[in-house]
Amino acid sequence: MTALEEKIVNDGTVLPGHILKVNSFLNHRLDAAFIMEMGEEIARLFREDKPTLILTIETSGIPIAFAAAVKLGVPVVFAKKHKSGNLSGDLYKTTVHSYTHGTDYTVVAEKKFISDTDRVLIVDDFLANGKALLGLIDIVNQAGATVVGASCAIEKGFQHGGDDLREKGYKVCSLAIVDEMNDDGSITFRQQ
Amino acid sequence: MTALEEKIVNDGTVLPGHILKVNSFLNHRLDAAFIMEMGEEIARLFREDKPTLILTIETSGIPIAFAAAVKLGVPVVFAKKHKSGNLSGDLYKTTVHSYTHGTDYTVVAEKKFISDTDRVLIVDDFLANGKALLGLIDIVNQAGATVVGASCAIEKGFQHGGDDLREKGYKVCSLAIVDEMNDDGSITFRQQ
Repeated sequence: MTALEEKIVNDGTVLPGHILKVNSFLNHRLDAAFIMEMGEEIARLFREDKPTLILTIETSGIPIAFAAAVKLGVPVVFAKKHKSGNLSGDLYKTTVHSYTHGTDYTVVAEKKFISDTDRVLIVDDFLANGKALLGLIDIVNQAGATVVGASCAIEKGFQHGGDDLREKGYKVCSLAIVDEMNDDGSITFRQQ
Repeated sequence: MTALEEKIVNDGTVLPGHILKVNSFLNHRLDAAFIMEMGEEIARLFREDKPTLILTIETSGIPIAFAAAVKLGVPVVFAKKHKSGNLSGDLYKTTVHSYTHGTDYTVVAEKKFISDTDRVLIVDDFLANGKALLGLIDIVNQAGATVVGASCAIEKGFQHGGDDLREKGYKVCSLAIVDEMNDDGSITFRQQ
């Protein structure tokens, strides 16, 4: 998605340690109109796969997942990163390793919101090592539902999580794939 | 908003301790189309106040804030509940007391995303004691910006946070106000 690549170049910031900050439009300040355009692009990429549900993970996956859900006419379930006092009943649980924070965390979703007939599209803001997506795929599998694919706004191609999932046979479509990112701020995008 | 009152009655669950669970459409599973309708209603209520920015707080305020932002054509800033590793630069900070969890927590927003010329509409999913809204108002005041009002999906009228803010002169419009909620599941809404 050329408009996203341009936005990353113009508004993003590369920090040491391969951190790409897009706080100005995607995960602190939200450019609502632009996120709706990203949602439309995800809908275009996955409409033929007939998803019935979008699964994402709190917090920063929620806006783009919500935008895609509006465009596809399906609901969202956002998995929660720990057992909140307001979650009750039977939960699907999985463990995700965060390279960013160097810890494991538990992710949960209420069982009643994912049925075995659901065709689930997984959406998130970033795809790096792919551990969060693997956790969400695990939840879909526990539900006996079908994963139709995964879509992320920004994939860090050099961290290989997306390509690992593609090699396993999943349809993974990221709106922009960063193959190289240098401390001088220069970014190389993968041709898609 | 009659449609929301009906949805609360049909899909919500009253739990002991004045807890109203609306996990099935507002804060775990998201009914994207219905949340967009709520966003349209917030836009209708506040368009004349010419907001330039919507401020909310993670996590469950994000979808409805985002929907209102799409309808109003403005961006969202969502305040974060603790200092994340990916937040840097100058931050506005405030402390909010959570009655639900019995603790204080710090809420932050990057200074560069709220300017003194902004007209800020505060949006959240629930309004009970009003402590989260007061924290967000404090952030707007620190920025030297203007609070044009606050809108929440569901206000617990019997906890008085909304009426306290109205008495202070703020325009507070909730889409549904629950004035009574009983352990037998019955709910009385305020006439608006």
